[in-house]
Amino acid sequence: MRIDCLQYANWSKKIFEQMREGKVDAVHVTIAYHENFRETVHNFEQWNRWFEQYPELICKGTTAADIDAARDAGRTAVFFGFQNPSPIEDDIGLVEIVHTLGARFMQLTYNNQSLLATGCYESEDTGITRMGKQVIKEMNRVGLVVDMSHSADRSTIEAADVSERPIVVTHANPHAWAPALRNKKDSVIQAIVNSGGMLGFSLYPHHLKDKSDCTLSGFCEMVARTAEKFGVEHIGLGSDLCQDQPDSVVEWMRVGRWSKEMDYGEGSASQPGFPPMPDWFKDNRDFGNIETGLRDVGMQDEEVAAVMGGNWYRFFETNFVPR
Amino acid sequence: MRIDCLQYANWSKKIFEQMREGKVDAVHVTIAYHENFRETVHNFEQWNRWFEQYPELICKGTTAADIDAARDAGRTAVFFGFQNPSPIEDDIGLVEIVHTLGARFMQLTYNNQSLLATGCYESEDTGITRMGKQVIKEMNRVGLVVDMSHSADRSTIEAADVSERPIVVTHANPHAWAPALRNKKDSVIQAIVNSGGMLGFSLYPHHLKDKSDCTLSGFCEMVARTAEKFGVEHIGLGSDLCQDQPDSVVEWMRVGRWSKEMDYGEGSASQPGFPPMPDWFKDNRDFGNIETGLRDVGMQDEEVAAVMGGNWYRFFETNFVPR
Repeated sequence: MRIDCLQYANWSKKIFEQMREGKVDAVHVTIAYHENFRETVHNFEQWNRWFEQYPELICKGTTAADIDAARDAGRTAVFFGFQNPSPIEDDIGLVEIVHTLGARFMQLTYNNQSLLATGCYESEDTGITRMGKQVIKEMNRVGLVVDMSHSADRSTIEAADVSERPIVVTHANPHAWAPALRNKKDSVIQAIVNSGGMLGFSLYPHHLKDKSDCTLSGFCEMVARTAEKFGVEHIGLGSDLCQDQPDSVVEWMRVGRWSKEMDYGEGSASQPGFPPMPDWFKDNRDFGNIETGLRDVGMQDEEVAAVMGGNWYRFFETNFVPR
Repeated sequence: MRIDCLQYANWSKKIFEQMREGKVDAVHVTIAYHENFRETVHNFEQWNRWFEQYPELICKGTTAADIDAARDAGRTAVFFGFQNPSPIEDDIGLVEIVHTLGARFMQLTYNNQSLLATGCYESEDTGITRMGKQVIKEMNRVGLVVDMSHSADRSTIEAADVSERPIVVTHANPHAWAPALRNKKDSVIQAIVNSGGMLGFSLYPHHLKDKSDCTLSGFCEMVARTAEKFGVEHIGLGSDLCQDQPDSVVEWMRVGRWSKEMDYGEGSASQPGFPPMPDWFKDNRDFGNIETGLRDVGMQDEEVAAVMGGNWYRFFETNFVPR
C-alpha cells in the first residue's frame, strides 16, 4: 500500500500514468490555495472531468474503502484537500458542503493569518480564533481533517487541544533535522501525535536538510529517528510534489490576491521558482527508492509498510466519516 | 409506502411532524426557484441544519435505499430538486456538482425561456437549446432527472426524445381534466410515458378542476382514468403543497429577479396569493384521504399502493444513480 498525503502537480495523463508506475494507491491532492468557494467548486469540476477522461488510471476517493477498490482495479484513488480555509469563506455551513463534495483535509491557514488561526509566516501567533473554534467543531462533526502544515506553533498546539478528533500535518519535516520555518518543532509534533494524528514527511527541497542535495539515506535516517521518537504509527509521506508546475503557480501559491508585492516564501528573489527535486525522488515513479531506503537504514518490513501507506490508510478509515 | 414528489413548504418542526403523522416515507422538496448556484448551496446548508436539528423526524435522501432506512427509523427521507436550471448557471460542470450535493430532479425551465428550453408561459416554444441538449446528456450521465413540469409542450416532447433516460412531470394534471396552462396535454403525457417516465398529480388548486372546490372523488376519478389511459405504473403524487408560505414567497416564485413588474402567473391581481387547499387535502396528514378516495373509485389495492408511492420508489431506484 502506497499513499502520498500531499501533491499539487500540473496534472496530466503523463502524471497519472507515473502514479500507476509508482504503484501509488492513493494520493491527497490540493485543490485550493487561495480559491474562494465558487473557484474551488470549479476545481472539483475539473477533477470530475479527469475522472471521466481517465477512468482506467484514477478514481475519486472519499473513504478508505475507495483505496481498496482502486487497488483492485489498478487505479489511484484521489482524495481532495485545501491548503487554506478560503473555500469556506466566512460560512460555517460550507464545511459540510465541501465535505459532501469530497474534501477530506483543510488547513486552517496558509502562511498568513486566516479567519481561523495564525499562519507560520506571521510575526504574532494569536492561536485559534472564535470562528476557528466553531469550524474545528464542525470539521470534527462531518469528518473533515484539520491540517496544520502551514500554521504557526501556538495555533497548531491549540488546534490539537480544541479538536476532539486527531489533527495532522500532511507535509513537513522535523525542525530539528532541517530548521526551515515550515518544519515542525518537537513540541508541535508531540501535540499532533498526542491527538492521535499524523505527520507526513515532505520531499519538497526547502523542507529537506541540504535542500535539493539531501541524500536518500539522510532522509530515511530522519524518518527512522522520528519513528523512534514519536512512534512509527504516527508517520507517513506527504511529498509536496509540485511536478510540472510553471513558476507562475508558485507565485499564486505565495501571494494569491493578498499582496501586490511579491513574497518569496521559502524561496528568494534570486531563486523564485520551484527548486529541483532530489535525484532519488523526481516524480511518482520513485516511491520505490524511499521504500528501499527505509529498509537500508534498518527499518523492519512492517514499519516500512506502515510509513509507505499503512498508517494513512488506517487514518483515512476512521477520520473521513461523520461522528 | 407514501412518496410525495413535490412540496415547497415553509419548513418547520410542525410540518416535519405532520409528515410523520401522514406516514410520508419520502418527499421531493424544491430548493431553488430562481436561486443561482451560491444561493442554492445556501439552501442545501439550511437543510443540513434541519437534518442536524430534527434527526428523529427527517433525513437526507439520495437513493431509494434511503427511503427504506427512513421507514425503518420512522423518519421521512427528503430528496432535493430545482424548479429551474438557475443553480447550474451557464456551467455544465455544475450538473455533477449539484448531483453530488444531493439534487435529484431539475426542471429545464420555470415558466420562462431558460438557457436550456422554453417555459410554459412563453408565446413561442423553440424547443431544447444547444446547451439544453448538452445538459440533458450530462444529467443522464450523473443521474439527475429531467423534470418538465413548468415547460412548454414542444420543449417537453423534445426533451423526452433527446433524453436517453426517463423524464418526468413531478407536479401537474391532465389538461383534458382541468385546462390550466400548467396542466399537460395528452400528447405531452404520452411522450413522458413513452420515455419510461412519471406524471405526479398536483393538489395545487390552480391545477384542479373547480380549483379549491375540487372534490376528492373528482380528483380520484381523474387519477383512475389517467391510469387506464396511460398505465398505472407511470403515475404518482406530486402535491405541490406550499404550506405556511407567506404571499411574498409566491411573488418570489413568479417574478424572482427577472421582472420589475408583477406577474401573477396562475393567480390574478384580485387573487395574488396562495389559493386555499381543498378541505380533503390541507397538509401532509391528509394522504390517507387520497388513499381511501382511490379505493372508493374502484382502484385495486396494488394500484393504489403504486400511485401512493410504489411507482416513485421504483423510479428513484433506477434513475438517481450514474449510468
